[in-house]
Amino acid sequence: MTITAPYLFDTDTTPAADGTIELSDRWNIAGGTCNGGYLLAATLQGLRPHLPAPDPLAVSAYYLRPGVAGPAEISAEVIKAGRRVATGAARLRQGGNDVVALTASFTDLDAVPQDAATFADPPELPDPAECVNPIAGGALPGVSIAERIDVAYAQPPGWITGRPSGTPYAQFWMRFADGRPADTVSLPMLVDAAAPVVFELGDMPSSTMQLTVHVRARPEPGWLACRVRTRYVTGGMHEEDFEIFDGTGKLVAQSRQLAMLL
Amino acid sequence: MTITAPYLFDTDTTPAADGTIELSDRWNIAGGTCNGGYLLAATLQGLRPHLPAPDPLAVSAYYLRPGVAGPAEISAEVIKAGRRVATGAARLRQGGNDVVALTASFTDLDAVPQDAATFADPPELPDPAECVNPIAGGALPGVSIAERIDVAYAQPPGWITGRPSGTPYAQFWMRFADGRPADTVSLPMLVDAAAPVVFELGDMPSSTMQLTVHVRARPEPGWLACRVRTRYVTGGMHEEDFEIFDGTGKLVAQSRQLAMLL
Repeated sequence: MTITAPYLFDTDTTPAADGTIELSDRWNIAGGTCNGGYLLAATLQGLRPHLPAPDPLAVSAYYLRPGVAGPAEISAEVIKAGRRVATGAARLRQGGNDVVALTASFTDLDAVPQDAATFADPPELPDPAECVNPIAGGALPGVSIAERIDVAYAQPPGWITGRPSGTPYAQFWMRFADGRPADTVSLPMLVDAAAPVVFELGDMPSSTMQLTVHVRARPEPGWLACRVRTRYVTGGMHEEDFEIFDGTGKLVAQSRQLAMLL
Repeated sequence: MTITAPYLFDTDTTPAADGTIELSDRWNIAGGTCNGGYLLAATLQGLRPHLPAPDPLAVSAYYLRPGVAGPAEISAEVIKAGRRVATGAARLRQGGNDVVALTASFTDLDAVPQDAATFADPPELPDPAECVNPIAGGALPGVSIAERIDVAYAQPPGWITGRPSGTPYAQFWMRFADGRPADTVSLPMLVDAAAPVVFELGDMPSSTMQLTVHVRARPEPGWLACRVRTRYVTGGMHEEDFEIFDGTGKLVAQSRQLAMLL
Protein backbone atom coordinates (compact mmCIF):
# COMPACT_ATOMS: atom_id res chain seq x y z
CA MET A 1 0.00 0.00 0.00
CA THR A 2 1.32 3.45 -0.87
CA ILE A 3 0.16 6.33 1.29
CA THR A 4 -0.34 9.31 -1.01
CA ALA A 5 -2.56 11.94 0.61
CA PRO A 6 -0.99 14.31 3.18
CA TYR A 7 -2.50 12.62 6.20
CA LEU A 8 -1.83 14.06 9.66
CA PHE A 9 -0.14 10.91 10.93
CA ASP A 10 2.54 11.24 8.27
CA THR A 11 2.83 15.02 8.54
CA ASP A 12 3.22 14.86 12.32
CA THR A 13 5.46 11.79 12.75
CA THR A 14 8.00 12.17 9.96
CA PRO A 15 11.23 13.91 10.96
CA ALA A 16 13.45 15.87 8.62
CA ALA A 17 16.45 14.12 7.12
CA ASP A 18 18.63 15.42 9.96
CA GLY A 19 16.32 13.83 12.57
CA THR A 20 14.73 17.04 13.80
CA ILE A 21 10.97 17.18 14.21
CA GLU A 22 8.37 19.59 15.54
CA LEU A 23 6.13 17.45 17.72
CA SER A 24 2.50 18.40 17.22
CA ASP A 25 -0.15 19.15 19.84
CA ARG A 26 -2.68 17.25 17.73
CA TRP A 27 -1.97 13.96 19.54
CA ASN A 28 -2.23 15.12 23.15
CA ILE A 29 -3.60 13.14 26.05
CA ALA A 30 -4.89 14.46 29.39
CA GLY A 31 -2.34 16.71 31.07
CA GLY A 32 -1.14 18.33 27.87
CA THR A 33 1.54 15.79 26.99
CA CYS A 34 1.96 13.82 23.79
CA ASN A 35 0.39 10.39 23.52
CA GLY A 36 2.99 7.65 23.98
CA GLY A 37 2.04 5.96 20.75
CA TYR A 38 2.60 9.23 18.90
CA LEU A 39 6.08 9.60 20.44
CA LEU A 40 6.84 6.00 19.53
CA ALA A 41 5.70 6.54 15.94
CA ALA A 42 7.91 9.60 15.50
CA THR A 43 10.92 7.75 16.93
CA LEU A 44 10.23 4.78 14.68
CA GLN A 45 9.94 7.05 11.63
CA GLY A 46 13.34 8.46 12.54
CA LEU A 47 14.86 4.97 12.52
CA ARG A 48 13.07 3.50 9.51
CA PRO A 49 15.01 5.20 6.67
CA HIS A 50 18.24 3.78 8.07
CA LEU A 51 17.16 0.15 7.77
CA PRO A 52 16.80 -1.86 4.55
CA ALA A 53 13.34 -3.36 5.27
CA PRO A 54 9.97 -1.59 5.22
CA ASP A 55 7.90 -3.14 8.01
CA PRO A 56 8.40 -2.75 11.77
CA LEU A 57 8.22 -6.28 13.18
CA ALA A 58 9.18 -6.03 16.86
CA VAL A 59 9.31 -2.60 18.48
CA SER A 60 10.25 -1.93 22.08
CA ALA A 61 10.06 1.55 23.60
CA TYR A 62 11.04 2.84 27.03
CA TYR A 63 9.40 6.09 28.14
CA LEU A 64 11.84 8.15 30.15
CA ARG A 65 10.15 11.56 30.40
CA PRO A 66 6.89 13.07 29.14
CA GLY A 67 7.11 14.43 25.61
CA VAL A 68 5.44 17.71 24.74
CA ALA A 69 4.57 19.56 21.54
CA GLY A 70 7.59 21.44 20.24
CA PRO A 71 11.04 20.75 18.86
CA ALA A 72 12.64 17.33 19.28
CA GLU A 73 15.39 15.36 17.64
CA ILE A 74 15.78 11.71 16.82
CA SER A 75 19.09 9.90 16.54
CA ALA A 76 19.31 6.45 14.98
CA GLU A 77 21.80 3.59 15.05
CA VAL A 78 21.85 0.52 12.82
CA ILE A 79 22.59 -2.53 14.99
CA LYS A 80 22.39 -5.25 12.35
CA ALA A 81 21.23 -4.91 8.75
CA GLY A 82 20.45 -8.60 8.27
CA ARG A 83 19.10 -10.09 5.07
CA ARG A 84 15.78 -11.18 6.58
CA VAL A 85 15.58 -9.01 9.71
CA ALA A 86 17.23 -5.62 10.28
CA THR A 87 17.54 -4.14 13.76
CA GLY A 88 18.29 -0.66 14.98
CA ALA A 89 17.94 1.67 17.93
CA ALA A 90 16.76 5.27 18.17
CA ARG A 91 16.36 7.98 20.78
CA LEU A 92 13.91 10.84 20.83
CA ARG A 93 15.23 13.82 22.79
CA GLN A 94 13.80 17.16 23.86
CA GLY A 95 15.98 19.89 25.35
CA GLY A 96 18.90 17.46 25.43
CA ASN A 97 17.01 14.90 27.53
CA ASP A 98 16.05 11.41 26.40
CA VAL A 99 12.27 11.02 26.12
CA VAL A 100 11.99 7.67 24.33
CA ALA A 101 14.60 4.92 23.93
CA LEU A 102 13.49 2.56 21.18
CA THR A 103 14.81 -0.63 19.62
CA ALA A 104 13.13 -2.14 16.58
CA SER A 105 13.52 -4.99 14.13
CA PHE A 106 12.18 -4.54 10.63
CA THR A 107 11.39 -7.07 7.93
CA ASP A 108 9.44 -7.32 4.67
CA LEU A 109 6.06 -8.77 5.60
CA ASP A 110 5.33 -9.45 1.91
CA ALA A 111 8.13 -12.01 1.99
CA VAL A 112 6.93 -14.15 4.91
CA PRO A 113 5.07 -17.47 4.60
CA GLN A 114 1.30 -17.09 4.40
CA ASP A 115 0.35 -20.15 6.46
CA ALA A 116 -1.39 -19.53 9.76
CA ALA A 117 -2.59 -21.48 12.78
CA THR A 118 -4.47 -19.48 15.37
CA PHE A 119 -5.76 -20.44 18.81
CA ALA A 120 -7.84 -17.36 19.61
CA ASP A 121 -10.68 -15.56 17.87
CA PRO A 122 -10.90 -11.95 16.73
CA PRO A 123 -13.26 -9.68 18.70
CA GLU A 124 -16.96 -10.06 18.00
CA LEU A 125 -18.34 -6.60 17.32
CA PRO A 126 -21.44 -5.20 15.64
CA ASP A 127 -20.97 -3.41 12.35
CA PRO A 128 -19.17 -0.09 12.98
CA ALA A 129 -22.24 1.79 11.68
CA GLU A 130 -24.22 0.36 14.62
CA CYS A 131 -21.57 1.41 17.14
CA VAL A 132 -20.98 4.68 19.00
CA ASN A 133 -17.96 6.92 19.51
CA PRO A 134 -18.28 8.11 23.11
CA ILE A 135 -15.19 10.34 23.03
CA ALA A 136 -16.01 12.34 19.89
CA GLY A 137 -16.92 16.02 19.77
CA GLY A 138 -14.76 17.29 22.60
CA ALA A 139 -16.03 14.88 25.26
CA LEU A 140 -12.49 14.81 26.68
CA PRO A 141 -11.28 18.44 26.76
CA GLY A 142 -7.62 18.82 25.80
CA VAL A 143 -7.37 15.23 24.60
CA SER A 144 -6.71 16.18 20.99
CA ILE A 145 -5.86 12.61 19.97
CA ALA A 146 -9.57 11.83 20.36
CA GLU A 147 -10.12 13.98 17.25
CA ARG A 148 -7.45 12.11 15.29
CA ILE A 149 -8.64 8.57 15.98
CA ASP A 150 -12.19 7.31 15.53
CA VAL A 151 -13.26 4.63 17.98
CA ALA A 152 -16.55 2.73 17.78
CA TYR A 153 -17.95 0.76 20.71
CA ALA A 154 -21.04 -1.46 20.82
CA GLN A 155 -21.90 0.40 24.06
CA PRO A 156 -20.07 3.33 25.66
CA PRO A 157 -17.44 1.99 28.06
CA GLY A 158 -18.32 2.29 31.73
CA TRP A 159 -15.54 4.69 32.69
CA ILE A 160 -16.72 7.40 30.32
CA THR A 161 -20.25 7.33 31.69
CA GLY A 162 -18.99 7.54 35.27
CA ARG A 163 -19.78 3.88 36.00
CA PRO A 164 -16.53 1.90 35.68
CA SER A 165 -17.36 -1.73 35.02
CA GLY A 166 -14.75 -3.14 37.43
CA THR A 167 -13.42 -5.34 34.62
CA PRO A 168 -10.35 -4.05 32.77
CA TYR A 169 -11.38 -5.43 29.38
CA ALA A 170 -12.71 -3.77 26.24
CA GLN A 171 -13.21 -4.35 22.54
CA PHE A 172 -13.97 -1.75 19.91
CA TRP A 173 -13.27 -0.59 16.37
CA MET A 174 -10.59 1.97 15.55
CA ARG A 175 -9.39 3.96 12.52
CA PHE A 176 -7.72 7.25 11.66
CA ALA A 177 -10.33 10.03 11.55
CA ASP A 178 -8.88 11.58 8.38
CA GLY A 179 -9.20 8.38 6.39
CA ARG A 180 -5.55 7.39 6.45
CA PRO A 181 -5.38 3.62 5.95
CA ALA A 182 -3.57 1.85 8.77
CA ASP A 183 -0.28 0.26 7.73
CA THR A 184 2.56 -1.48 9.52
CA VAL A 185 4.17 1.85 10.41
CA SER A 186 1.09 3.23 12.12
CA LEU A 187 0.01 0.07 13.98
CA PRO A 188 2.69 0.58 16.68
CA MET A 189 1.01 3.89 17.43
CA LEU A 190 -2.55 2.58 17.36
CA VAL A 191 -1.90 -0.04 20.08
CA ASP A 192 -1.37 2.87 22.47
CA ALA A 193 -3.96 5.29 21.10
CA ALA A 194 -6.96 4.32 23.24
CA ALA A 195 -7.68 5.15 26.88
CA PRO A 196 -6.02 2.78 29.41
CA VAL A 197 -8.47 -0.02 30.16
CA VAL A 198 -7.68 0.25 33.90
CA PHE A 199 -10.03 3.25 33.76
CA GLU A 200 -12.68 0.53 34.24
CA LEU A 201 -11.34 0.09 37.79
CA GLY A 202 -12.09 3.68 38.73
CA ASP A 203 -10.01 6.83 38.67
CA MET A 204 -6.67 5.20 37.93
CA PRO A 205 -4.54 7.35 35.66
CA SER A 206 -1.42 5.51 34.58
CA SER A 207 1.69 6.25 32.60
CA THR A 208 3.40 3.86 30.18
CA MET A 209 6.91 2.83 31.20
CA GLN A 210 7.60 0.24 28.53
CA LEU A 211 5.74 -0.83 25.41
CA THR A 212 6.51 -3.73 23.09
CA VAL A 213 4.64 -4.15 19.80
CA HIS A 214 4.78 -7.07 17.41
CA VAL A 215 3.45 -6.26 13.95
CA ARG A 216 2.25 -9.57 12.58
CA ALA A 217 0.77 -8.75 9.17
CA ARG A 218 -0.20 -5.91 6.84
CA PRO A 219 -3.75 -4.76 7.56
CA GLU A 220 -6.44 -4.49 4.91
CA PRO A 221 -7.89 -0.95 4.60
CA GLY A 222 -10.83 -0.07 6.83
CA TRP A 223 -11.83 -0.32 10.46
CA LEU A 224 -9.59 -2.29 12.82
CA ALA A 225 -11.04 -4.51 15.54
CA CYS A 226 -9.26 -4.07 18.88
CA ARG A 227 -9.22 -6.03 22.12
CA VAL A 228 -7.51 -4.75 25.25
CA ARG A 229 -7.11 -6.39 28.62
CA THR A 230 -5.28 -5.93 31.92
CA ARG A 231 -4.96 -9.00 34.15
CA TYR A 232 -2.64 -7.96 36.96
CA VAL A 233 -2.61 -4.67 38.85
CA THR A 234 0.14 -5.17 41.42
CA GLY A 235 2.87 -3.11 43.05
CA GLY A 236 1.39 0.11 41.66
CA MET A 237 1.84 -1.23 38.13
CA HIS A 238 -0.17 -3.02 35.51
CA GLU A 239 0.34 -4.62 32.14
CA GLU A 240 -1.98 -3.88 29.22
CA ASP A 241 -2.31 -6.32 26.35
CA PHE A 242 -3.66 -4.91 23.10
CA GLU A 243 -4.53 -6.85 19.96
CA ILE A 244 -5.51 -5.39 16.60
CA PHE A 245 -7.25 -7.36 13.85
CA ASP A 246 -8.15 -6.04 10.44
CA GLY A 247 -11.67 -6.24 9.02
CA THR A 248 -10.99 -9.73 7.61
CA GLY A 249 -10.30 -11.05 11.12
CA LYS A 250 -6.54 -11.28 10.63
CA LEU A 251 -4.28 -10.46 13.60
CA VAL A 252 -2.11 -7.53 12.53
CA ALA A 253 -0.54 -6.29 15.78
CA GLN A 254 -0.11 -7.46 19.34
CA SER A 255 1.32 -5.34 22.13
CA ARG A 256 2.00 -5.40 25.83
CA GLN A 257 2.89 -2.43 27.94
CA LEU A 258 3.91 -2.01 31.56
CA ALA A 259 2.44 1.12 33.08
CA MET A 260 2.74 2.79 36.45
CA LEU A 261 -0.30 4.06 38.33
CA LEU A 262 0.04 7.75 39.13
CA MET B 1 17.10 -12.27 49.83
CA THR B 2 20.88 -12.63 49.71
CA ILE B 3 22.26 -15.35 47.49
CA THR B 4 25.26 -16.84 49.30
CA ALA B 5 26.19 -20.26 47.91
CA PRO B 6 28.19 -20.43 44.67
CA TYR B 7 25.26 -21.44 42.48
CA LEU B 8 25.84 -22.11 38.79
CA PHE B 9 23.47 -19.36 37.65
CA ASP B 10 25.61 -16.76 39.39
CA THR B 11 28.93 -18.34 38.40
CA ASP B 12 27.92 -18.56 34.76
CA THR B 13 26.09 -15.25 34.24
CA THR B 14 28.25 -12.76 36.14
CA PRO B 15 30.84 -10.95 34.00
CA ALA B 16 34.11 -9.56 35.30
CA ALA B 17 34.26 -5.87 36.19
CA ASP B 18 35.51 -5.09 32.66
CA GLY B 19 32.46 -6.77 31.10
CA THR B 20 34.24 -9.87 29.84
CA ILE B 21 32.67 -13.27 30.47
CA GLU B 22 33.29 -16.87 29.51
CA LEU B 23 29.90 -18.15 28.41
CA SER B 24 29.33 -21.66 29.73
CA ASP B 25 28.17 -24.75 27.83
CA ARG B 26 26.04 -25.70 30.83
CA TRP B 27 22.99 -23.84 29.47
CA ASN B 28 22.90 -25.21 25.94
CA ILE B 29 19.81 -25.95 23.91
CA ALA B 30 19.50 -28.24 20.87
CA GLY B 31 22.04 -27.38 18.21
CA GLY B 32 24.84 -26.59 20.63
CA THR B 33 24.01 -22.92 21.16
CA CYS B 34 23.36 -21.09 24.41
CA ASN B 35 19.79 -20.76 25.67
CA GLY B 36 18.39 -17.30 24.96
CA GLY B 37 17.42 -16.78 28.58
CA TYR B 38 20.98 -17.53 29.62
CA LEU B 39 22.35 -14.96 27.16
CA LEU B 40 19.80 -12.45 28.41
CA ALA B 41 20.76 -13.09 32.03
CA ALA B 42 24.46 -12.56 31.34
CA THR B 43 23.74 -9.32 29.46
CA LEU B 44 21.50 -8.14 32.28
CA GLN B 45 24.17 -8.95 34.87
CA GLY B 46 26.57 -6.82 32.84
CA LEU B 47 24.20 -3.86 33.02
CA ARG B 48 23.00 -4.21 36.61
CA PRO B 49 26.05 -2.86 38.49
CA HIS B 50 25.81 0.38 36.52
CA LEU B 51 22.28 1.20 37.69
CA PRO B 52 21.26 2.38 41.18
CA ALA B 53 18.33 -0.02 41.70
CA PRO B 54 18.45 -3.76 42.37
CA ASP B 55 15.49 -5.28 40.54
CA PRO B 56 15.01 -5.67 36.80
CA LEU B 57 11.49 -4.39 36.10
CA ALA B 58 11.10 -4.30 32.31
CA VAL B 59 13.68 -6.07 30.17
CA SER B 60 13.67 -6.17 26.38
CA ALA B 61 16.18 -8.23 24.40
CA TYR B 62 16.77 -8.56 20.68
CA TYR B 63 18.60 -11.71 19.54
CA LEU B 64 20.86 -10.91 16.61
CA ARG B 65 23.01 -14.01 16.28
CA PRO B 66 23.30 -17.35 18.11
CA GLY B 67 25.53 -17.21 21.17
CA VAL B 68 27.91 -20.07 21.91
CA ALA B 69 30.02 -21.15 24.86
CA GLY B 70 33.29 -19.20 24.96
CA PRO B 71 34.50 -15.65 25.45
CA ALA B 72 32.10 -12.74 25.18
CA GLU B 73 32.00 -9.16 26.29
CA ILE B 74 29.24 -6.95 27.59
CA SER B 75 29.13 -3.18 27.24
CA ALA B 76 26.67 -1.11 29.24
CA GLU B 77 25.20 2.38 28.95
CA VAL B 78 23.18 4.25 31.56
CA ILE B 79 20.26 5.96 29.81
CA LYS B 80 18.54 7.53 32.82
CA ALA B 81 19.33 6.96 36.48
CA GLY B 82 15.95 8.09 37.77
CA ARG B 83 14.98 8.16 41.42
CA ARG B 84 12.23 5.57 41.09
CA VAL B 85 13.16 3.85 37.83
CA ALA B 86 16.62 3.58 36.27
CA THR B 87 17.08 2.55 32.64
CA GLY B 88 20.09 1.37 30.70
CA ALA B 89 21.15 -0.53 27.61
CA ALA B 90 23.70 -3.29 27.11
CA ARG B 91 25.15 -5.36 24.28
CA LEU B 92 26.60 -8.83 24.45
CA ARG B 93 29.19 -9.43 21.72
CA GLN B 94 31.20 -12.41 20.56
CA GLY B 95 34.04 -12.06 18.08
CA GLY B 96 33.16 -8.41 17.62
CA ASN B 97 29.57 -9.18 16.56
CA ASP B 98 26.46 -8.18 18.48
CA VAL B 99 24.61 -11.22 19.84
CA VAL B 100 22.09 -9.58 22.19
CA ALA B 101 20.91 -5.95 22.30
CA LEU B 102 19.15 -5.34 25.60
CA THR B 103 17.37 -2.43 27.24
CA ALA B 104 16.19 -2.66 30.84
CA SER B 105 14.56 -0.58 33.52
CA PHE B 106 15.36 -1.37 37.14
CA THR B 107 13.57 -0.41 40.33
CA ASP B 108 13.44 -1.42 43.99
CA LEU B 109 10.50 -3.81 44.28
CA ASP B 110 10.61 -3.50 48.08
CA ALA B 111 9.56 0.12 47.67
CA VAL B 112 6.40 -0.40 45.59
CA PRO B 113 2.83 -0.40 46.94
CA GLN B 114 1.63 -3.82 48.11
CA ASP B 115 -1.97 -3.54 46.94
CA ALA B 116 -3.07 -5.87 44.18
CA ALA B 117 -6.10 -6.50 41.97
CA THR B 118 -5.86 -9.50 39.69
CA PHE B 119 -8.17 -10.73 36.95
CA ALA B 120 -6.60 -14.13 36.25
CA ASP B 121 -5.75 -17.15 38.37
CA PRO B 122 -2.41 -18.88 38.92
CA PRO B 123 -1.97 -22.31 37.31
CA GLU B 124 -3.66 -25.22 39.08
CA LEU B 125 -1.06 -27.92 39.49
CA PRO B 126 -0.69 -31.00 41.70
CA ASP B 127 1.97 -30.89 44.39
CA PRO B 128 5.42 -31.01 42.74
CA ALA B 129 6.11 -34.33 44.51
CA GLU B 130 3.24 -35.85 42.52
CA CYS B 131 4.58 -34.49 39.21
CA VAL B 132 7.14 -35.83 36.75
CA ASN B 133 10.20 -34.35 35.07
CA PRO B 134 10.12 -35.79 31.56
CA ILE B 135 13.36 -34.16 30.40
CA ALA B 136 15.62 -35.28 33.28
CA GLY B 137 18.44 -37.77 33.02
CA GLY B 138 19.66 -36.99 29.53
CA ALA B 139 16.32 -37.40 27.77
CA LEU B 140 17.35 -34.54 25.45
CA PRO B 141 20.98 -35.23 24.44
CA GLY B 142 23.11 -32.07 24.28
CA VAL B 143 20.44 -29.96 25.96
CA SER B 144 22.51 -29.23 29.04
CA ILE B 145 20.07 -26.63 30.36
CA ALA B 146 17.72 -29.55 31.15
CA GLU B 147 20.21 -30.52 33.88
CA ARG B 148 20.26 -26.98 35.32
CA ILE B 149 16.50 -26.46 35.58
CA ASP B 150 14.04 -28.87 37.19
CA VAL B 151 10.61 -28.95 35.61
CA ALA B 152 7.64 -30.85 37.02
CA TYR B 153 4.53 -31.64 34.96
CA ALA B 154 1.30 -33.29 36.05
CA GLN B 155 1.67 -35.45 32.93
CA PRO B 156 4.53 -35.52 30.42
CA PRO B 157 3.80 -33.00 27.65
CA GLY B 158 2.70 -34.51 24.35
CA TRP B 159 5.67 -33.40 22.29
CA ILE B 160 8.17 -35.32 24.40
CA THR B 161 6.25 -38.56 24.09
CA GLY B 162 5.99 -38.16 20.30
CA ARG B 163 2.29 -37.24 20.44
CA PRO B 164 2.03 -33.44 20.18
CA SER B 165 -1.28 -32.32 21.63
CA GLY B 166 -2.08 -29.81 18.88
CA THR B 167 -2.65 -27.16 21.55
CA PRO B 168 0.26 -24.79 22.26
CA TYR B 169 -0.43 -24.46 25.98
CA ALA B 170 1.31 -25.88 29.04
CA GLN B 171 1.62 -25.41 32.77
CA PHE B 172 4.26 -26.86 35.04
CA TRP B 173 6.53 -26.23 38.00
CA MET B 174 10.09 -24.96 37.62
CA ARG B 175 13.14 -24.37 39.83
CA PHE B 176 16.93 -24.33 39.65
CA ALA B 177 18.26 -27.88 39.99
CA ASP B 178 21.08 -26.83 42.34
CA GLY B 179 18.72 -25.26 44.85
CA ARG B 180 19.37 -21.62 43.96
CA PRO B 181 16.32 -19.62 45.01
CA ALA B 182 14.77 -17.70 42.15
CA ASP B 183 15.07 -13.93 42.48
CA THR B 184 14.27 -10.95 40.32
CA VAL B 185 17.59 -11.27 38.46
CA SER B 186 17.03 -14.89 37.47
CA LEU B 187 13.33 -14.63 36.53
CA PRO B 188 14.15 -13.00 33.15
CA MET B 189 16.11 -16.15 32.34
CA LEU B 190 13.50 -18.59 33.60
CA VAL B 191 10.76 -17.25 31.30
CA ASP B 192 12.85 -18.56 28.39
CA ALA B 193 14.23 -21.71 29.99
CA ALA B 194 11.54 -24.21 28.95
CA ALA B 195 10.96 -25.82 25.58
CA PRO B 196 8.91 -23.71 23.13
CA VAL B 197 5.26 -24.64 23.54
CA VAL B 198 4.80 -24.70 19.73
CA PHE B 199 6.44 -28.12 20.01
CA GLU B 200 2.85 -29.21 20.74
CA LEU B 201 2.06 -28.44 17.08
CA GLY B 202 4.60 -30.95 15.79
CA ASP B 203 8.21 -30.64 14.76
CA MET B 204 8.40 -26.83 14.82
CA PRO B 205 11.77 -25.62 16.02
CA SER B 206 11.79 -21.88 16.50
CA SER B 207 14.28 -19.20 17.40
CA THR B 208 13.59 -16.19 19.62
CA MET B 209 13.89 -12.83 17.87
CA GLN B 210 12.67 -10.56 20.64
CA LEU B 211 11.81 -11.16 24.29
CA THR B 212 10.26 -8.73 26.75
CA VAL B 213 10.02 -9.60 30.44
CA HIS B 214 8.19 -7.71 33.17
CA VAL B 215 9.29 -8.66 36.67
CA ARG B 216 6.29 -7.92 38.85
CA ALA B 217 7.33 -9.01 42.34
CA ARG B 218 10.01 -10.78 44.35
CA PRO B 219 9.32 -14.53 44.44
CA GLU B 220 9.15 -16.55 47.65
CA PRO B 221 11.68 -19.41 47.75
CA GLY B 222 10.60 -22.75 46.30
CA TRP B 223 8.98 -24.11 43.17
CA LEU B 224 7.57 -21.63 40.65
CA ALA B 225 4.29 -22.29 38.82
CA CYS B 226 4.51 -21.52 35.11
CA ARG B 227 1.94 -21.10 32.37
CA VAL B 228 2.92 -20.75 28.72
CA ARG B 229 0.75 -20.18 25.69
CA THR B 230 1.00 -19.38 21.98
CA ARG B 231 -2.13 -18.03 20.30
CA TYR B 232 -1.03 -16.97 16.82
CA VAL B 233 1.32 -18.82 14.47
CA THR B 234 1.34 -16.63 11.37
CA GLY B 235 3.81 -15.52 8.74
CA GLY B 236 6.36 -18.08 9.93
CA MET B 237 6.36 -16.45 13.37
CA HIS B 238 4.67 -16.93 16.70
CA GLU B 239 4.43 -15.17 20.01
CA GLU B 240 4.90 -17.04 23.29
CA ASP B 241 3.43 -15.68 26.52
CA PHE B 242 4.98 -16.98 29.71
CA GLU B 243 3.79 -16.29 33.26
CA ILE B 244 5.56 -17.27 36.47
CA PHE B 245 3.87 -17.38 39.88
CA ASP B 246 5.58 -18.21 43.14
CA GLY B 247 4.31 -20.91 45.47
CA THR B 248 1.96 -18.45 47.20
CA GLY B 249 0.13 -17.80 43.91
CA LYS B 250 1.68 -14.37 43.38
CA LEU B 251 2.51 -13.29 39.81
CA VAL B 252 6.26 -12.62 39.75
CA ALA B 253 7.08 -12.42 36.03
CA GLN B 254 5.28 -12.08 32.73
CA SER B 255 6.96 -12.31 29.35
CA ARG B 256 6.18 -12.30 25.68
CA GLN B 257 8.53 -13.29 22.94
CA LEU B 258 8.34 -13.20 19.16
CA ALA B 259 10.02 -16.21 17.60
CA MET B 260 10.69 -17.31 14.04
CA LEU B 261 9.99 -20.86 12.90
CA LEU B 262 13.10 -22.43 11.42
